Amino acid sequence: MAVKYELIKVCKQSGARLGRVHTPHGVIETPAFMPVGTQATVKTMSPEELKTMDAQIILSNTYHLFLRPGHDIVGRAGGLHKFMNWDRPILTDSGGFQVFSLSDMRKITEEGVQFRSHLNGDKLFLSPEKAMEIQNALGSDIMMAFDECPPYPAEYDYVKQSLERTTRWAERCLNSHARKHDQGLFAIVQGGMYKDLRIQSAKDLTSMDFPGYAIGGLSVGEPKHLMYEVLDYTVPELPTGKPRYLMGVGSPDALIEGSIRGVDMFDCVLPTRIARNGTTMTSQGRLVVRNAKFAEDFGPLDPECSCYTCKNYSRAYIRHLLKADETFGIRLTTYHNLHFLLQLMRDVRQAIMEDRLLDFRDDFFTKYGLFDNDKGF
Amino acid sequence: MAVKYELIKVCKQSGARLGRVHTPHGVIETPAFMPVGTQATVKTMSPEELKTMDAQIILSNTYHLFLRPGHDIVGRAGGLHKFMNWDRPILTDSGGFQVFSLSDMRKITEEGVQFRSHLNGDKLFLSPEKAMEIQNALGSDIMMAFDECPPYPAEYDYVKQSLERTTRWAERCLNSHARKHDQGLFAIVQGGMYKDLRIQSAKDLTSMDFPGYAIGGLSVGEPKHLMYEVLDYTVPELPTGKPRYLMGVGSPDALIEGSIRGVDMFDCVLPTRIARNGTTMTSQGRLVVRNAKFAEDFGPLDPECSCYTCKNYSRAYIRHLLKADETFGIRLTTYHNLHFLLQLMRDVRQAIMEDRLLDFRDDFFTKYGLFDNDKGF
Repeated sequence: MAVKYELIKVCKQSGARLGRVHTPHGVIETPAFMPVGTQATVKTMSPEELKTMDAQIILSNTYHLFLRPGHDIVGRAGGLHKFMNWDRPILTDSGGFQVFSLSDMRKITEEGVQFRSHLNGDKLFLSPEKAMEIQNALGSDIMMAFDECPPYPAEYDYVKQSLERTTRWAERCLNSHARKHDQGLFAIVQGGMYKDLRIQSAKDLTSMDFPGYAIGGLSVGEPKHLMYEVLDYTVPELPTGKPRYLMGVGSPDALIEGSIRGVDMFDCVLPTRIARNGTTMTSQGRLVVRNAKFAEDFGPLDPECSCYTCKNYSRAYIRHLLKADETFGIRLTTYHNLHFLLQLMRDVRQAIMEDRLLDFRDDFFTKYGLFDNDKGF
Repeated sequence: MAVKYELIKVCKQSGARLGRVHTPHGVIETPAFMPVGTQATVKTMSPEELKTMDAQIILSNTYHLFLRPGHDIVGRAGGLHKFMNWDRPILTDSGGFQVFSLSDMRKITEEGVQFRSHLNGDKLFLSPEKAMEIQNALGSDIMMAFDECPPYPAEYDYVKQSLERTTRWAERCLNSHARKHDQGLFAIVQGGMYKDLRIQSAKDLTSMDFPGYAIGGLSVGEPKHLMYEVLDYTVPELPTGKPRYLMGVGSPDALIEGSIRGVDMFDCVLPTRIARNGTTMTSQGRLVVRNAKFAEDFGPLDPECSCYTCKNYSRAYIRHLLKADETFGIRLTTYHNLHFLLQLMRDVRQAIMEDRLLDFRDDFFTKYGLFDNDKGF
């Protein structure tokens, strides 16, 4: 198999897992946060900067690359790694989530989904086979099976029909995946907020031999305690010898809570998206550096942070750049926020190693106060 | 004096000067091109990137920093070098050019210029004394005297009155400059396209003891041959022991022609501005990488270039980023264009050292064909 999970240890205090995911482009220490590079670039960042903050793996979006520049072009460029100059692991999603959240005029059939491009209205079609063809051309280390992500809230009957179709689609993905030797395909557990459906989805998918399993359909508007409940009854259904990936989750509190519940991988646009609005994650909680009160604050974004931004620039300078619409300001806040989450995951891994992740969580939530409400960021 | 010029040698073939400008923050090898960091940042670039391409000095704009964030804030931050994390030399202009080109409702008197901010309409006033106060707070290595830059074309009588006022303002700048020990003040020769007025301006200003002299009011819409004519009769009026700075000029052909005419320093927003539109300077001439024909061109922007962009990324990738409005695309084109001009100046210095700058110019113009028309870029 192209992707293998190695369990190093389980935290005696919390049950969280310390592990390694082995991929064709290198090893990922888990639990891990994956920065998102939607359009073959993590917005504003260079690959070298991502390495400096020790990003181990990035995620890129099948739907976006299918639309632009086209997976055929990326394929002819030698694959996504070469195209974007990133030689560490890449995970690509299946396009399913974006088809349902971004595109217009969707029509779902057993065969796949017909939709219109959000860029130019072109009529397009994605199916399990097409999603595999695209991701095979991109050459990501970890591919995702094509799924439907139902909205929240959704009726029981709809969610049940949807997850059963997603399971049939997962099997078709497995059958049409042409590069099993060097690309690992993960299946996505769906089932909304219904316990029996989540368990059904997990059982059906784990009866097939995927090298990893994702939990999809969370962080779609439901309260966080509901997301944690779903994890509580879903994760135990997943095999211990395979990595578990919680899709679309990246607030600091949810990264810790997810790790405690046995999740190994996470991704989210949160740190990069809020950075572009001048919002940063710091050891003192959320800090909106655009605010007027920082106009003459010559201290760093976060006095406890050791990142490039905090070592070299003041809140006053960053605020000036953001107010003046200077790109470098967004580079600085993006760098800091990504570093913050990557450092958090290093701290989480250390806490697991030392069997004290629950203590770590309590300390973190006390100190970072702002994150422990239901909405988080 | 805070700023001193050291003449190393004169090119036997062309008369161009190889030299060094010594400043409080280090030495500049001349002829030199200065990247422009209007708002305390060279658009999209980090200081480290500018150093990697060996930018020796950058320019920042007094008018913009006066308006936002305010020179008082930059001063309290410890000066512009510390504020923006740039420890090499900085030159600040006087604000004069921007007052006349950007602001609204100008009213010029002997005392100074009243105008409205282009950002919020605030009524503001700049005078020689105020321009010195601002630049003293910014702490640039090289400051510019407050001048009026007449438009092109302009009537003889107006240009004569204007340059005489600019000379009186230069004297007031010299008198109110509070940091002569660690900031060098350059005067600006005006006089439009009138030979006798240029010579009058140069004579009047060189009768005062400025550590350097700029030639202003060029590259304001006049044909290039007219600019070269002005240099032909103006530069000989300037002292050989002081640096000569041609303001606002940065097309490759004009950098070479200016060097041949004895200019030591240049600045221009051209490389960074055209980069943002997807236009690049290459050994094959101008290349608009946004064009559809590069969609599947997997070669570098410039096969003869050794810069970060050309070593790591293809035209197809850069085009994709620009089409997708991804900032990293502009970072890549900006890096390349700045590197191109800085490399050009290294080549010019080498050619002066080897007494072959005229040969270098002819080879360059033959090869880079596109630049040798009147409009250049």
